[in-house]
Amino acid sequence: MKRHSESRQIPVAISAHHVHFTQATIDLLFGKNYVLQPRSALSQPGQFAAVETVTLIGPLGRLEHVRVLGPSRAADQVEVSRTDQRTLGLDAPLRLSGDLESTPGLVLEGPKGRAVLTTGVVCALRHIHMSPSDAEDLNVKDHDVVQVAVESEGRRVVFGDVVVRVSPDYRLELHLDTDEGNAAGAGPETTAHLVNQPV
Amino acid sequence: MKRHSESRQIPVAISAHHVHFTQATIDLLFGKNYVLQPRSALSQPGQFAAVETVTLIGPLGRLEHVRVLGPSRAADQVEVSRTDQRTLGLDAPLRLSGDLESTPGLVLEGPKGRAVLTTGVVCALRHIHMSPSDAEDLNVKDHDVVQVAVESEGRRVVFGDVVVRVSPDYRLELHLDTDEGNAAGAGPETTAHLVNQPV
Repeated sequence: MKRHSESRQIPVAISAHHVHFTQATIDLLFGKNYVLQPRSALSQPGQFAAVETVTLIGPLGRLEHVRVLGPSRAADQVEVSRTDQRTLGLDAPLRLSGDLESTPGLVLEGPKGRAVLTTGVVCALRHIHMSPSDAEDLNVKDHDVVQVAVESEGRRVVFGDVVVRVSPDYRLELHLDTDEGNAAGAGPETTAHLVNQPV
Repeated sequence: MKRHSESRQIPVAISAHHVHFTQATIDLLFGKNYVLQPRSALSQPGQFAAVETVTLIGPLGRLEHVRVLGPSRAADQVEVSRTDQRTLGLDAPLRLSGDLESTPGLVLEGPKGRAVLTTGVVCALRHIHMSPSDAEDLNVKDHDVVQVAVESEGRRVVFGDVVVRVSPDYRLELHLDTDEGNAAGAGPETTAHLVNQPV
């Protein structure tokens, strides 16, 4: 059996609900040829949280002040937690980023107008970003599914079903959504490590 | 080392935010000598979800339609998730039911008036209810802290820091809050089992 390194500390990042937009959708919500304004750099190189936020409108409710991430992408993607999807009244499947087939849509509202997405709403499958050298160090490869222990005070958790994503553009980081981060008692300084025993 | 039974299936219950009230608080919110109306029985014997709901008002926000559980108790207790406490703008410590010292309060709003709690808001520590014979069967005792694997599709989790609660009044059940249930992909039919390896 392949043994992963259990000693390497993996930083943990909690992703609140957020959206990635095409330029066409940015145009509809913020105005023709609008350029997203970076607010803060994200830990993954080149990615940023924008100044801009939008409102998500589902069959049962709204979520306001949802952060737009930049830069723009080839497809619209809305990432919500299970808690959020209950508020909105829709059923978002667990997916890796970019895997948007047969996902529901919703209505978006920005300062200059609305946009109707017919698809693109997902609940992010938990995953670890890493570079090829991190992958070698941890003895895993792209798309491996691993178990990860999150070290916290009072709410220790081992997450199964964590997907490994390897790219030269990635920095080592476990990505959880807010439900998962809360369940694990994770904060800004929390770290995690791979575990070998199956969950 | 004490070995727990790993084969026994443990039903999983997800507790959404809810409140337990003293009769004095019920009087303030619903009227003098008001009696809570049972809406549905809970799995723990004698406990029920009431028809009545209230609004929780914190420094940053409100939560509406929060279910009252019955019967009335000797102390007011408000149980919220980490997601909820962010909405409300307060910091509820992880506690077992009834352990309310140094917990924050908030404002409650009912159809007949408001009540101000100076204490009683908690984030429930995950726990398993069980009878003495279940405890013997599982080889655990009251207040043991155990690890529990939740079996789900796509979001398998092992929760550490799960407290065992034993009483003749209890029925075997793992209690998670909504953040934890979401993180584990738990639904109405989900079950769990004890695991022996430390998390």
